[in-house]
Amino acid sequence: MQGFNGIGWTKAQTDHKTLMQKAIILLSGGLDSTTTLYYAKNKGYKCHALIFDYGQRHKKEIKSAIKIAKLTKTPYQIVKIKLPWGGSVLLGSKGQVPRYKKMRKEIPPTYVPARNTIFLSFALSYAEAIGAKHIFIGANAIDYSGYPDCRPSFIKAFQNLISKGTRDQGIGVRAPLINKTKKQIVKLARKLKVPLELTWSCYKGGRKPCGVCDSCILREKGFST
Amino acid sequence: MQGFNGIGWTKAQTDHKTLMQKAIILLSGGLDSTTTLYYAKNKGYKCHALIFDYGQRHKKEIKSAIKIAKLTKTPYQIVKIKLPWGGSVLLGSKGQVPRYKKMRKEIPPTYVPARNTIFLSFALSYAEAIGAKHIFIGANAIDYSGYPDCRPSFIKAFQNLISKGTRDQGIGVRAPLINKTKKQIVKLARKLKVPLELTWSCYKGGRKPCGVCDSCILREKGFST
Repeated sequence: MQGFNGIGWTKAQTDHKTLMQKAIILLSGGLDSTTTLYYAKNKGYKCHALIFDYGQRHKKEIKSAIKIAKLTKTPYQIVKIKLPWGGSVLLGSKGQVPRYKKMRKEIPPTYVPARNTIFLSFALSYAEAIGAKHIFIGANAIDYSGYPDCRPSFIKAFQNLISKGTRDQGIGVRAPLINKTKKQIVKLARKLKVPLELTWSCYKGGRKPCGVCDSCILREKGFST
Repeated sequence: MQGFNGIGWTKAQTDHKTLMQKAIILLSGGLDSTTTLYYAKNKGYKCHALIFDYGQRHKKEIKSAIKIAKLTKTPYQIVKIKLPWGGSVLLGSKGQVPRYKKMRKEIPPTYVPARNTIFLSFALSYAEAIGAKHIFIGANAIDYSGYPDCRPSFIKAFQNLISKGTRDQGIGVRAPLINKTKKQIVKLARKLKVPLELTWSCYKGGRKPCGVCDSCILREKGFST
């Protein structure tokens, strides 16, 4: 693979040593995780996608994730879990997804308790079992929802957990978008030729994105000029 | 509740402030987790048990866990998950559970990749959703299997993860058996009147315990004189 210098690879990152190493990718079908998949594939990783069916309000994002995995010929596993205790308006159909005009500082009711901890723990199990040394997650913490489990300190803490609680302590959590703005993510996605039209960000599962949920507002921010 | 001084409660631990606080208990139906449930109940916590059906070789331990939850009138949730990537002889029916005469130092093939990380992440989600401030786990690291996710450093790392990745950063992971020998655990279990005859430790699901797997050997150690 040729170096992809336009988006800041270092020589070491495109070194042949990293090529065709196995990686697990958390794939939700949204802009961020899809861009992360393309990023990892472009770096030469042999990607395995994990798609979660966790009782979210709609199946549209799962369908997007499957389409993207198939398009990119990425082997994928769908992990079906139930979180019957709830704790989020995104779980089940109860409660209203808030309509906002702009992002706020507090943690919103769309936060799903421990979601990324659960997702990363399955990815960690998968990685250990198949000998993958990398787990990619599309978390970012600049133009973001305010979820605590998207921040660099959380990623760092999960990395530390791996070093204490696994057989293969060398598995690394990669969050290449963590410090990017939404505009930078969209720019990267275009450079990587991400099929943006296939990604789905809206928290609701309507025919068209609602345009007023957190996720729609953040996505719009990325595309605004 | 009266202080249970014989097993080392401090006054603060039996303080009324801790009474009837909600706690999540990881309950496998074995000696350690059952003793941990009785420990928490005796301290006055309002316990909610999490029982995992994760594709283990047999359902016997799940049945034990359910019996114990019912006997103690502990509300419980059964979390059904699949780990199709394997990575352990305990998952599915492939591979042999080793027969040993004594414990060894290396991590055995019964290790299930990231199992306690997964279990604790569900417990964390449950705790946040229902406002429980405590998660109890029966992990111990003296007479143990050698699993890395049973050691104090792992518990500490998960505690750190909670402080970085949740809305309720005050949730605590409690591992009251962590530094106890098997003999001390059996002694504690007897003091707490744990129904030892209902617990199931053997990795195999036969009519009687096999007596030669790691788990049987460790259990036997606790009861030997």
